[in-house]
Amino acid sequence: MAEKLVFLSDEYFRTVTDRPVFPQITGETIAQRFDTSLPVEAEPLESLIDDCRAIIDGSRHNGHPRFFGYVASPSTPAGGFADLLASTLNPSVTSWRSAPAPAQVERTVVRWLGSLIGYDDNAVGLLTSGGSMANLTALLIAHRAKAEHAVAQEGIANGAERMMIYVSAQVHMSIPKAADVLGLGQKSVRIIPSDDRFCFNAIALDEASKTDQRNNLKPFCVVASAGTAASGAVDPLAEIGDVARRHGLWFHIDGAYGAPAAMVKECKPRFAGLELADSVSLDPHKWLYTPVDCGCLLLRDAAAARKPFVAEGEYVKVHETAELESFAFWDYGIELSRRFRALKIWLTLKFYGARRIAEAIAEDMEMAKYMAQQIEADPEFELLAPVQLSICCFRYVPASLSDQMKSANNHEERENLHAELNRLNERIMHRMQRGGRAYLSNAMLCDTFALRACIINFRTTRADIDITLETVRQTARELEAEENS
Amino acid sequence: MAEKLVFLSDEYFRTVTDRPVFPQITGETIAQRFDTSLPVEAEPLESLIDDCRAIIDGSRHNGHPRFFGYVASPSTPAGGFADLLASTLNPSVTSWRSAPAPAQVERTVVRWLGSLIGYDDNAVGLLTSGGSMANLTALLIAHRAKAEHAVAQEGIANGAERMMIYVSAQVHMSIPKAADVLGLGQKSVRIIPSDDRFCFNAIALDEASKTDQRNNLKPFCVVASAGTAASGAVDPLAEIGDVARRHGLWFHIDGAYGAPAAMVKECKPRFAGLELADSVSLDPHKWLYTPVDCGCLLLRDAAAARKPFVAEGEYVKVHETAELESFAFWDYGIELSRRFRALKIWLTLKFYGARRIAEAIAEDMEMAKYMAQQIEADPEFELLAPVQLSICCFRYVPASLSDQMKSANNHEERENLHAELNRLNERIMHRMQRGGRAYLSNAMLCDTFALRACIINFRTTRADIDITLETVRQTARELEAEENS
Repeated sequence: MAEKLVFLSDEYFRTVTDRPVFPQITGETIAQRFDTSLPVEAEPLESLIDDCRAIIDGSRHNGHPRFFGYVASPSTPAGGFADLLASTLNPSVTSWRSAPAPAQVERTVVRWLGSLIGYDDNAVGLLTSGGSMANLTALLIAHRAKAEHAVAQEGIANGAERMMIYVSAQVHMSIPKAADVLGLGQKSVRIIPSDDRFCFNAIALDEASKTDQRNNLKPFCVVASAGTAASGAVDPLAEIGDVARRHGLWFHIDGAYGAPAAMVKECKPRFAGLELADSVSLDPHKWLYTPVDCGCLLLRDAAAARKPFVAEGEYVKVHETAELESFAFWDYGIELSRRFRALKIWLTLKFYGARRIAEAIAEDMEMAKYMAQQIEADPEFELLAPVQLSICCFRYVPASLSDQMKSANNHEERENLHAELNRLNERIMHRMQRGGRAYLSNAMLCDTFALRACIINFRTTRADIDITLETVRQTARELEAEENS
Repeated sequence: MAEKLVFLSDEYFRTVTDRPVFPQITGETIAQRFDTSLPVEAEPLESLIDDCRAIIDGSRHNGHPRFFGYVASPSTPAGGFADLLASTLNPSVTSWRSAPAPAQVERTVVRWLGSLIGYDDNAVGLLTSGGSMANLTALLIAHRAKAEHAVAQEGIANGAERMMIYVSAQVHMSIPKAADVLGLGQKSVRIIPSDDRFCFNAIALDEASKTDQRNNLKPFCVVASAGTAASGAVDPLAEIGDVARRHGLWFHIDGAYGAPAAMVKECKPRFAGLELADSVSLDPHKWLYTPVDCGCLLLRDAAAARKPFVAEGEYVKVHETAELESFAFWDYGIELSRRFRALKIWLTLKFYGARRIAEAIAEDMEMAKYMAQQIEADPEFELLAPVQLSICCFRYVPASLSDQMKSANNHEERENLHAELNRLNERIMHRMQRGGRAYLSNAMLCDTFALRACIINFRTTRADIDITLETVRQTARELEAEENS
């Protein structure tokens, strides 16, 4: 079985480029194939390998060079095989006691990631399953650091002031979801309109925080983005950090997608202020090309973040005296059992070197710029947001609608055309996703439906960009022809 | 690199039995070896493979036949290589849209796990990183189902009644931690003393809930254990379920460790009532021998658990109409990015068959019974809890102290002897853990320090049990000799 699964893995890495990006299947056919009864007796190996092939064939291929949906990068082969060793050794990285070398490797890898964003050796952190868990944990630590009562014992205090979090309109959904999960409620999330580049407006933040204080609310946290999921916008981190400092707010940066771009020399000025954050989320399973799952929460000052949780009980009592040996990840995170996620980062960075990874990131950004150039050169396309990192948001505007928009002379007419364009681009996206040639997802930028390409893939070339844009045009024409027939 | 890592994995599975259970190292030596600077340039392959060997050598080996600490099972080779394919294919199992076949495989595997505990096709669920995350998610869903106000919007309501969770004194630490994280506070967790078999006392639960209601608190949830972490006690599930029903409480069962034993025919009566639970946690990375991480939360009634969270935003808008194709795991869990955890359960159950897995579980339970027999036959040992599943709690009592305890004629004297025994057994555990021959952890049973062996390992034989008990005796004698010298 080992031999056959290694063969399948090897074959997959070699052939992913030749597959359709998305399989030609329906929910029903997949269910018919896989929704079987519990296997009581062992099944023959051949049938298991057939299953594996069918699972591969029934998957969307995030590693395909024309997969541009969401923020989903391919794994390097090094990352895949690192996960084999992690599962073979099978430590649960709860603490030094339970996994001495793996725990040390995780602490070291976290220090490396901290150094990429300008943190020093006072920082601490831990790997999580992804950005949602890192953001949730950050808000939890922030709340406990800023709350004036014993939340661990009392809960979100009855009768206390409502504690407020400030975000831009471009914030990732995981932040309001975290506010919900933590019992703060979405009412505790103040959404500040973003500017015309979809960035956080520091002046509006300052004003909102002041207004809330006057109204007996207690501002405690601001979340900025170092690369929004919608358009890759990098907020003015230093400015936000300055407001945070003046208002005594915990400064969290969601850099799940974008923070690794701080490794690229030309990007450094844009990320100035990252190092001011009290906490930063950064997902190695995004722009460091490791397999899912691998997120990271970085905390600038270990002392300020120390033991926000109650982790009592004999079960986790560490019977050690040496400081290194009494370290436990459960003091900083929610999980107890923890996979050895650090190994794939360790081997990826050592096998390729940080410089080469930075080059791959820079190349992805180049691709997005190239895409934007092609879009701006084509009157049938409209670029909808500046390309700040490696996301390109645009829409298809057929000549007929383009003319109508120019001549539209009242609000209602313009609104109708706008709605028609939204519907058209949604249909283009949907058909393209199922077509299997190239995969785009979408973003809503204010009320505009954007086709969105997120390029975090070392396999993508300029030719892939060209094919993708050509597929948009073709798909639009197909839809038009169908409508007219 | 792939070839070499496959070789290392294969070698590890063949040699784990011959290794010391715990490496002869300190935090400092490990840090010296691994706490290096960020690798800017690629390192030679040989040096990476050396790192991997050093990581293996610097690990505790949960797969060793004499590793009995905590609840940490070995991975089967099938599970390890399944994880290779999961990381190669690298889907993020957020929804059907993002991973059609992997999402279906997860839903099917969850249905299989549900069927093991008597759930029918109305059940739903999802894989998590472990029991802590499954328990946290269960409490969150329970709270939202029972709260009478709009918690998602408002947060834990100001001025509302405090909502209470009932647990036994043997509850796993993840439950009070979850209450803390969710903003309920530990004051919301009412701890009911367990009975003399360390089981939940249903009558005391009934009374506590009534008292709290009279005091204007709002009981909403009870958490029972199908196998406590300390001693493997299985609570009287049907009785607790009955109280839960009468009081309108959400009934959650933490079966992270023990629930898979419901597969074993002779155990079925003991688990009667599992199927009554509104939710059950069950960790495949424990007694189904898959690699970490792999927990599972099962929910009896999909309709009752539907969308407890706010998951808004264009990013997760599913542009599908078919029901199967619009399924998303983010509607039930906290994570957005999710590893393809289902594959290792799928391949483990198909490769070995559920019957053989059940036999391995039964054998582990046999081993624990055998251990208890050896302990009861030896006057130097004292069994501290009945063996209900595969955990055996005991202590070493040297003849000298045993005699003194019999002749002790006042409370203070007995307390002093008790404290001395606690210290002695703690020292035995610590030295054994570092010795590398066999690994026990501990449990505090009331105020008694117990040496604790949790046997969830298909490699363990009776000879391993004998060697472990002999190592306890030898270690005790060593300590005695040192004290007298």
